[in-house]
Amino acid sequence: MSDVDDLAERVEEGELRLHELEAHADEATAAEVRRLLVERRTGAALDTVGDYAFAPEDAVGSNIENLVGGAQVPMGVVGPVRINADDPDGAVSGDKYLPMATTEGALVASVNRGCAAIRAGGGATARVLKNAMTRAPVFRVADVGEAAETAAWVREHTDDLAGTAEATTSHGELREATPYVVGDSVFVRFAYDTKDAMGMNMATIATQEAAEHIEAETPAELVALSGNLCSDKKPAAVNAVNGRGRTVSADVTLSRETVADVLKTTPEAIAEANTRKNLVGSAKAGSLGFNAHAANTVAAAFLATGQDIAQVVEGANAITTVDVRDGGDTLYASLTIASLEVGTVGGGTKLPTQAEALDVVGVRGGGSPPGANADALAEVITTAALGGELSLLGALASSHLASAHEELGR
Amino acid sequence: MSDVDDLAERVEEGELRLHELEAHADEATAAEVRRLLVERRTGAALDTVGDYAFAPEDAVGSNIENLVGGAQVPMGVVGPVRINADDPDGAVSGDKYLPMATTEGALVASVNRGCAAIRAGGGATARVLKNAMTRAPVFRVADVGEAAETAAWVREHTDDLAGTAEATTSHGELREATPYVVGDSVFVRFAYDTKDAMGMNMATIATQEAAEHIEAETPAELVALSGNLCSDKKPAAVNAVNGRGRTVSADVTLSRETVADVLKTTPEAIAEANTRKNLVGSAKAGSLGFNAHAANTVAAAFLATGQDIAQVVEGANAITTVDVRDGGDTLYASLTIASLEVGTVGGGTKLPTQAEALDVVGVRGGGSPPGANADALAEVITTAALGGELSLLGALASSHLASAHEELGR
Amino acid sequence: MSDVDDLAERVEEGELRLHELEAHADEATAAEVRRLLVERRTGAALDTVGDYAFAPEDAVGSNIENLVGGAQVPMGVVGPVRINADDPDGAVSGDKYLPMATTEGALVASVNRGCAAIRAGGGATARVLKNAMTRAPVFRVADVGEAAETAAWVREHTDDLAGTAEATTSHGELREATPYVVGDSVFVRFAYDTKDAMGMNMATIATQEAAEHIEAETPAELVALSGNLCSDKKPAAVNAVNGRGRTVSADVTLSRETVADVLKTTPEAIAEANTRKNLVGSAKAGSLGFNAHAANTVAAAFLATGQDIAQVVEGANAITTVDVRDGGDTLYASLTIASLEVGTVGGGTKLPTQAEALDVVGVRGGGSPPGANADALAEVITTAALGGELSLLGALASSHLASAHEELGR
Amino acid sequence: MSDVDDLAERVEEGELRLHELEAHADEATAAEVRRLLVERRTGAALDTVGDYAFAPEDAVGSNIENLVGGAQVPMGVVGPVRINADDPDGAVSGDKYLPMATTEGALVASVNRGCAAIRAGGGATARVLKNAMTRAPVFRVADVGEAAETAAWVREHTDDLAGTAEATTSHGELREATPYVVGDSVFVRFAYDTKDAMGMNMATIATQEAAEHIEAETPAELVALSGNLCSDKKPAAVNAVNGRGRTVSADVTLSRETVADVLKTTPEAIAEANTRKNLVGSAKAGSLGFNAHAANTVAAAFLATGQDIAQVVEGANAITTVDVRDGGDTLYASLTIASLEVGTVGGGTKLPTQAEALDVVGVRGGGSPPGANADALAEVITTAALGGELSLLGALASSHLASAHEELGR
Repeated sequence: MSDVDDLAERVEEGELRLHELEAHADEATAAEVRRLLVERRTGAALDTVGDYAFAPEDAVGSNIENLVGGAQVPMGVVGPVRINADDPDGAVSGDKYLPMATTEGALVASVNRGCAAIRAGGGATARVLKNAMTRAPVFRVADVGEAAETAAWVREHTDDLAGTAEATTSHGELREATPYVVGDSVFVRFAYDTKDAMGMNMATIATQEAAEHIEAETPAELVALSGNLCSDKKPAAVNAVNGRGRTVSADVTLSRETVADVLKTTPEAIAEANTRKNLVGSAKAGSLGFNAHAANTVAAAFLATGQDIAQVVEGANAITTVDVRDGGDTLYASLTIASLEVGTVGGGTKLPTQAEALDVVGVRGGGSPPGANADALAEVITTAALGGELSLLGALASSHLASAHEELGR
Repeated sequence: MSDVDDLAERVEEGELRLHELEAHADEATAAEVRRLLVERRTGAALDTVGDYAFAPEDAVGSNIENLVGGAQVPMGVVGPVRINADDPDGAVSGDKYLPMATTEGALVASVNRGCAAIRAGGGATARVLKNAMTRAPVFRVADVGEAAETAAWVREHTDDLAGTAEATTSHGELREATPYVVGDSVFVRFAYDTKDAMGMNMATIATQEAAEHIEAETPAELVALSGNLCSDKKPAAVNAVNGRGRTVSADVTLSRETVADVLKTTPEAIAEANTRKNLVGSAKAGSLGFNAHAANTVAAAFLATGQDIAQVVEGANAITTVDVRDGGDTLYASLTIASLEVGTVGGGTKLPTQAEALDVVGVRGGGSPPGANADALAEVITTAALGGELSLLGALASSHLASAHEELGR
Repeated sequence: MSDVDDLAERVEEGELRLHELEAHADEATAAEVRRLLVERRTGAALDTVGDYAFAPEDAVGSNIENLVGGAQVPMGVVGPVRINADDPDGAVSGDKYLPMATTEGALVASVNRGCAAIRAGGGATARVLKNAMTRAPVFRVADVGEAAETAAWVREHTDDLAGTAEATTSHGELREATPYVVGDSVFVRFAYDTKDAMGMNMATIATQEAAEHIEAETPAELVALSGNLCSDKKPAAVNAVNGRGRTVSADVTLSRETVADVLKTTPEAIAEANTRKNLVGSAKAGSLGFNAHAANTVAAAFLATGQDIAQVVEGANAITTVDVRDGGDTLYASLTIASLEVGTVGGGTKLPTQAEALDVVGVRGGGSPPGANADALAEVITTAALGGELSLLGALASSHLASAHEELGR
Repeated sequence: MSDVDDLAERVEEGELRLHELEAHADEATAAEVRRLLVERRTGAALDTVGDYAFAPEDAVGSNIENLVGGAQVPMGVVGPVRINADDPDGAVSGDKYLPMATTEGALVASVNRGCAAIRAGGGATARVLKNAMTRAPVFRVADVGEAAETAAWVREHTDDLAGTAEATTSHGELREATPYVVGDSVFVRFAYDTKDAMGMNMATIATQEAAEHIEAETPAELVALSGNLCSDKKPAAVNAVNGRGRTVSADVTLSRETVADVLKTTPEAIAEANTRKNLVGSAKAGSLGFNAHAANTVAAAFLATGQDIAQVVEGANAITTVDVRDGGDTLYASLTIASLEVGTVGGGTKLPTQAEALDVVGVRGGGSPPGANADALAEVITTAALGGELSLLGALASSHLASAHEELGR
């Protein structure tokens, strides 16, 4: 009896639990046993799931538990994304390719078309405007008197809290610690510069210490290390207004000819579609997202480059603006993402296909200075997403969304 | 010179463009050429990206363009998810495993722990409460007089529009066509039962016809087939309030002992964390998400089962409630996701690792009756996400979020 | 010792409480005693508060308790508001004056200037697009199984509920009863056509009966007759998206000359101010109000005409759109208020200054057909508010033009 | 022919316009002429409108234009509002009466009952947590490069901007100047401590200067002095999250007996109503207001004391929390209003009935130190509104208890 069969039998007999297999076998074998058991119990065949290209010993624990194998998603590439050409003030300059992993037919083609339009316009300008990964614990106090006292203490001791928080990290810096009071709950939104890391773990660990500091110095007692004013993986105005992770803006100016040649429509038609759909339609929808489909590019780039895909939620807090200029000779378009949470170290970035994708962008690992790689990635994603906005607006304006899907989506 | 080198050279020389390669080679070769070119231009090595397990000829066009290979994400499994045991009114009944693909360490373990708590509580009850994939075109009219006229026409001719829309699809059914007016813009939100398909394409094609019908019968002129009142891949109240895709609720009752044994805390501590964090904290954050991390489970399950991961945005429109009952003897917990967009046919569900994952849940392909498989998948994901809520609330309540990450996340 | 002194002494000695005075004196005397006591206890003099022009016996109980007198607010008048000239499809047609009560200097002048612009443009078109006063009780159920069952029952028995609800009212008609489920809470949003009444009381009484009907037929138990999905006097997307009270839109087209002569600026400058401020600025603010100051007109008109001024909250759910047309020859502008709650019978409309103000508009009392007066009032207020939008946008736009000119002159 | 008739005739003949009468007569006469003309044109009688108690010469220009008379609203009084008894840290301490002007029957009685409950609980604790009147101009820049440059300049020159802004005011102090970028629009949210003034005018004037300073030093050009990130009189998350005017919290602890005696229900029933209605119901409604009817008290107090009633919109951004403590022996309740905009000088506070109402609260005019009176008023209003919350929650909770009892009795 092979090791695999033997372990499977022990699980079937209740000696072991499915998640305990790594204590009795290496990660690859444990995953094989799990596949076998899941196949038996569900009737599924897990052949392609088992045919994965990363080292299970690297993934288990760091990225996954109860490993059975890998999910494989087609990866395409868009570009070149021309960005900040001859412009030293952005985090990245020149022509970049961006890998996108998706299962939505026509998406890569659409973004790629938008990138062509951007190149024809001389490239985009992009800037990281703010960098602030947040974590906001919630504390319990006796009453609003204590709440006011606690909030005042926090306001007056931000430097002390920075000292405490930063002692837990070699890279992170505390930028703000903003107290919010609701009755007998006090929230403190800590905002960190986490350099090239997306920073959620760094922020959590630093905040744990800072929260204990607050507990020691004020009447406040910690209830939860995250009090949802962070706000992680929820659609929340606090992020759309105040930002989280990178706040990034990209824009481009296209000639009337480029709009006609590449986007098959006119500046006026794109502007009308943007106003009625992205501004007025979103307004009527009670939306925090005033864009056409920024989340599509964000999601596909996040998946390809090892970001946390649940943070696509915040990446959808984006506003697209369009303006006809020069009497119709040019079209100005911009995309601003309020809360784009990206990193080039840690998390999923070390997995092999993801690391390779980061190499394609040229931003794997820590940047120089620290934070430069994550800034660059943020600018490239935002610019590609701007391309996606232009392309979809153009498609809508030239009345062929459905036909485009028909042509490309099957 | 090999085909690959030859094609690469032709691209380098500007004879071909990167996205035109499929016209000159099969999909696998085209992807190889692209990898070669991207490697040359960026210095990246794309070895693992090129080592993919799906058939490129199936993916290109349907799911991807400019294919270079695959992104691979570790897949774990949680469960059994016990759901609607002995309850014939849900879409699914019994014990199910749910594959989750993620790079966030500790996530699968956390959800799995929550599923153990749910099993200890006798399993969850889950229900799909509404099923409505939406597409909302925006029309231009001359003034509010015409707007009122158009809106009235739509209200009075919903059956006609249903006829037109449904002629484009063998499965979809139009449920509602609700007009919204903002000055000289008229939006009509079409809502369809799209059965086992997520339904965005079906809804788009059907709406294209219905929009032309409206143009023919009213003064309205179509500006964009999507007017953002749909609202797709944006964080929007219209979805959180009125629903999109499946509206699903799952709940469970746990004994005080289960809370202590599995979640290492008390019903009161979980209730306090839920109230201060998920309700009051989210309220203060201006959020549409009143949950701890529902998007995490949604994202990982979406990725594993071939859903559109950009729709994690809508999947975060979720409310978690917790109630201490029976004088502290039991803990009631529920999770309601307003807009969970899932399908078991079409899109990414046909890719091999994704199809295998759907087989694990037992919901690959069309259900019987149509829609049953997508309903079942929605209930399983929501129940697992409820497990994730319980587990994270428990971790926060027992004050070890950071330590949990320390232990599991490295 | 006068009656007044005697009663005051009895209150001072604790024999009577301040709110019990009407049991021992007529309303005018009771108010006089209260003024005396409040003056003694606070040192305030209440001379002008005591100099009021309404009949205390009519107000006490219907509109006020613990009466001390009246608050007096300056009332101005704007107009004529030209609306639906020669247009039989609106609820009102011709020239109307609108009284506005406010303490904000320049407001009446500003709105009046906007009304002049509207007249110069030939008058506005206005339409009531929807009429639905809502009340949404919240029920407790055991679990999501019962929740689904209750929601299904409500969907299938709307006609029965209409019968029950309408038995309580001579005028109101139930239009919709929409169930919403969140775990073990079921909300049902009842929407009524309440004709010329604002309708909150009518809706509440009818809903009380309907809620008991639901309790009798389903497992649901009523927790609160209002469950905040109504949503009354709160800034809520449910109203901004789905409407409450009247949903009203008004628009106008102005010539370039009118914009120059009356508003002292250009169509382009107004359009730019509207886009950057009302659309993009509001988007970034996470707002449900995409307008310049619609609430100002709504509040002043509400105060003058006896509406419930706390419902100014919902009246701020308004979107202003502006469009330069005809190559710059004309400016199109619209204002759409999603949830304008007005009545011409009941509430404060019977008070004398308020009744006189309604007579100025020509809409006091019940309309013919029922609802026509409230519809007309809604159209007049929205049109005046559109005037306010144009005037403020013009002022903002021309003041930067002015400074630009000043600079050029230097 | 009297002056009045003569002037009326000149208006009728088109020699004068309705708003020009003050140039030809004193304010009282001008108003009389206007009443006459409006009566003739509309058929209304304006007798009580003409019977007003304020000096028209004080109101015209400062508070009103096109004066016709006064709107009179019944004023009641609630209290005593017991607040910060023996607590030196609040802005006000002891027993206060609060005038409320309203036309909604039962409102004053309801709030008064809540105040009785608060007194029975030993009084409320209240605190002003933040004080920041805001104005946010919007600037145009060429592209996101200039936007980033402008935002950086603002961040680095807050002190300079404070100098410029504060030169326009004897009292105001600039607290923050926060830049927000959306493409080629730059918003700067200026936040001022405006002491006892509500401060909108002060903030606007100071911001005008600061905006010109920014224009002089950066590439930015002012488009509108208000860019809706302020955000004034709109329901906006930026205010709910970050505050505007006063952010105020009040709370109280009631014994089980007080809840039974005064509110006729139990702590548990109030807590359930609060959770299902104010928290869960508001969450599902996509609301920024998580309260029962705070706007009612805010509106009535604003009207009585001369505040800007259109700012009731922001006053509805309030969260009510309720907690059963001590094993059911006590009920904790709090109300936090994020953006309560009040003043005791300027605006409508100088009108006679309003000034008298401020005297009742003891806060007319400038406080000592400056700001103390407006702080005190904010605390009193919030505490009374907390009373209103308790009373309505009690009524909702007890009416379902009552029906439960009725059923039991059958």
